[in-house]
Amino acid sequence: MRQAGRYLPEYQALRARAEDFLALCMTPDLAAEVTLQPVHRFGFDAAILFSDILILPWALGRPLSFVEGQGPVMPPLRKAEEVAALDLARMPEAMAPVLETIRIVRATLPASATLIGFGGAPFTLACYLVDGTGGAFLATRRAIREDPSFFTALIERLTDATIAWLTAQAEAGAEALMLFDSWAGLLPPLLFRQFVMAPTARILAALKRRFPRVPLMGFPRLAGLMLPAYAALPGLDAVGLDTTSDPVLARSLVPNELTLQGNLDPLALLAGGPALAEEAGAIASALRGHPHIFNLGHGVLPETPPAHVANLVSLVRGL
Amino acid sequence: MRQAGRYLPEYQALRARAEDFLALCMTPDLAAEVTLQPVHRFGFDAAILFSDILILPWALGRPLSFVEGQGPVMPPLRKAEEVAALDLARMPEAMAPVLETIRIVRATLPASATLIGFGGAPFTLACYLVDGTGGAFLATRRAIREDPSFFTALIERLTDATIAWLTAQAEAGAEALMLFDSWAGLLPPLLFRQFVMAPTARILAALKRRFPRVPLMGFPRLAGLMLPAYAALPGLDAVGLDTTSDPVLARSLVPNELTLQGNLDPLALLAGGPALAEEAGAIASALRGHPHIFNLGHGVLPETPPAHVANLVSLVRGL
Repeated sequence: MRQAGRYLPEYQALRARAEDFLALCMTPDLAAEVTLQPVHRFGFDAAILFSDILILPWALGRPLSFVEGQGPVMPPLRKAEEVAALDLARMPEAMAPVLETIRIVRATLPASATLIGFGGAPFTLACYLVDGTGGAFLATRRAIREDPSFFTALIERLTDATIAWLTAQAEAGAEALMLFDSWAGLLPPLLFRQFVMAPTARILAALKRRFPRVPLMGFPRLAGLMLPAYAALPGLDAVGLDTTSDPVLARSLVPNELTLQGNLDPLALLAGGPALAEEAGAIASALRGHPHIFNLGHGVLPETPPAHVANLVSLVRGL
Repeated sequence: MRQAGRYLPEYQALRARAEDFLALCMTPDLAAEVTLQPVHRFGFDAAILFSDILILPWALGRPLSFVEGQGPVMPPLRKAEEVAALDLARMPEAMAPVLETIRIVRATLPASATLIGFGGAPFTLACYLVDGTGGAFLATRRAIREDPSFFTALIERLTDATIAWLTAQAEAGAEALMLFDSWAGLLPPLLFRQFVMAPTARILAALKRRFPRVPLMGFPRLAGLMLPAYAALPGLDAVGLDTTSDPVLARSLVPNELTLQGNLDPLALLAGGPALAEEAGAIASALRGHPHIFNLGHGVLPETPPAHVANLVSLVRGL
């Protein structure tokens, strides 16, 4: 999950120095500093690159803005010609500042901490591209049904771009790679296999072949009962559990060697108090003896007191 | 799932005769006719009462309106005094028109068709009461953490009211009862047990004691990996699967005698064509030999052509 953000006063201060969110992501010195802020404050075992999944479609030529109170906004993509126009050749130049950010972070990060690079999974990227903004993604879900060849072409193109993008991140120094499929839970089983699992499998295979020692992590949010099928994808080293997933059952349904990541409710972190210790303890107990990366099940909420995060770190280190 | 609605021209025509959605629900002749419209048109095996889950808090004294494009709107409930003011004594009079609707439908419905009554589960009702409208329900999720005694009292009161409400429906002639927990998937495992499963267990026990032969059905939407725990609740006869749930895995994780209901994607119904037959067939195959009620995994979308529904009925009857 994104570690930096509005809950940190040092982020707010630095955010004011960039014109907008996109500029912040694309200015290496600032993005590197934001990436490192939570690691310096809390002593996390890993840093996750400060960026956004929609930087990739932007690099492929789609206009992108982040509107206060609404989130990302892009012109809806609905035509085959627009898929064909997604231009992978633009990526090296457009993405150079992000790769520079990775190099700066790697040069500064304590050797004991791991730098995680990431991308949005093709299905989740397609949701934003086709609908143009967040919501129930009905335009995307209609396009899948009513124009499957258009949607398949879009997913294929985004899969190629994601492989190129994560490859570049690993080459620049990312030591682990995570794929966020925030909207995987919108799809019924047959389509989940087709548009979540199949492209993810292709990405995992390409990266594992090229970087056999870089751990690959997936986060199919709200996959629910599709989680075990996803977790069995070859090449996947870790899977993130969303807040709804019972870690006891998850553990029993995934391969023994697969690392589970998660899944504290961000609301428990926001509230703090005895319930925070209880919930963190329940997650740790459920996964004792199983490879586990303690994490939230969703992003940190902006109203979260940083002291609660510090508390959680010491709680988890004490478990 | 609601069978009637905007996708039916006969519903649109009848809807125009009531002042607003609430008036339509509370006018027995009209509500009964709406309930029967899809049964007459498609020959379904069951009719589900045309009503709304928020009729219950309205009957307990909370103002309610349905705003075009926004859905239900209520004044947010945040204080212990407001919980204490939820007045179960208002229910018999406030709810009389709905019970009259049930009696009219039972008198008209073919003997071969079952009349299903329903209510919202306490957690989902609480979401709307505390936040005041739909969304991410952050106020509700904060209240759970920051004022657990307030939230527990609210859930208890809504559980009592739901037992009274479903009891009245069964007495009026509802032949099966369904509990919709549309937002169950917002809760992490510990809270899911506390605020979804525990109140549901109390409702099931009270109804089963009183009406041992009335089937009780639950729909914990987006419960994901919590589904098997929910499905094991004593007294539960059937559980609805949302669109994300793999029926093959669901079947393997629930008791053999528990009926599964669902779970066709409404988008497949909207689109029609060969994919509709393929997805319906995949669901039926996955649940062959297991007690199964074929249904959607979510409500019918307003843009759905009625001819697609007729097609689906004949497809399913032919399986």
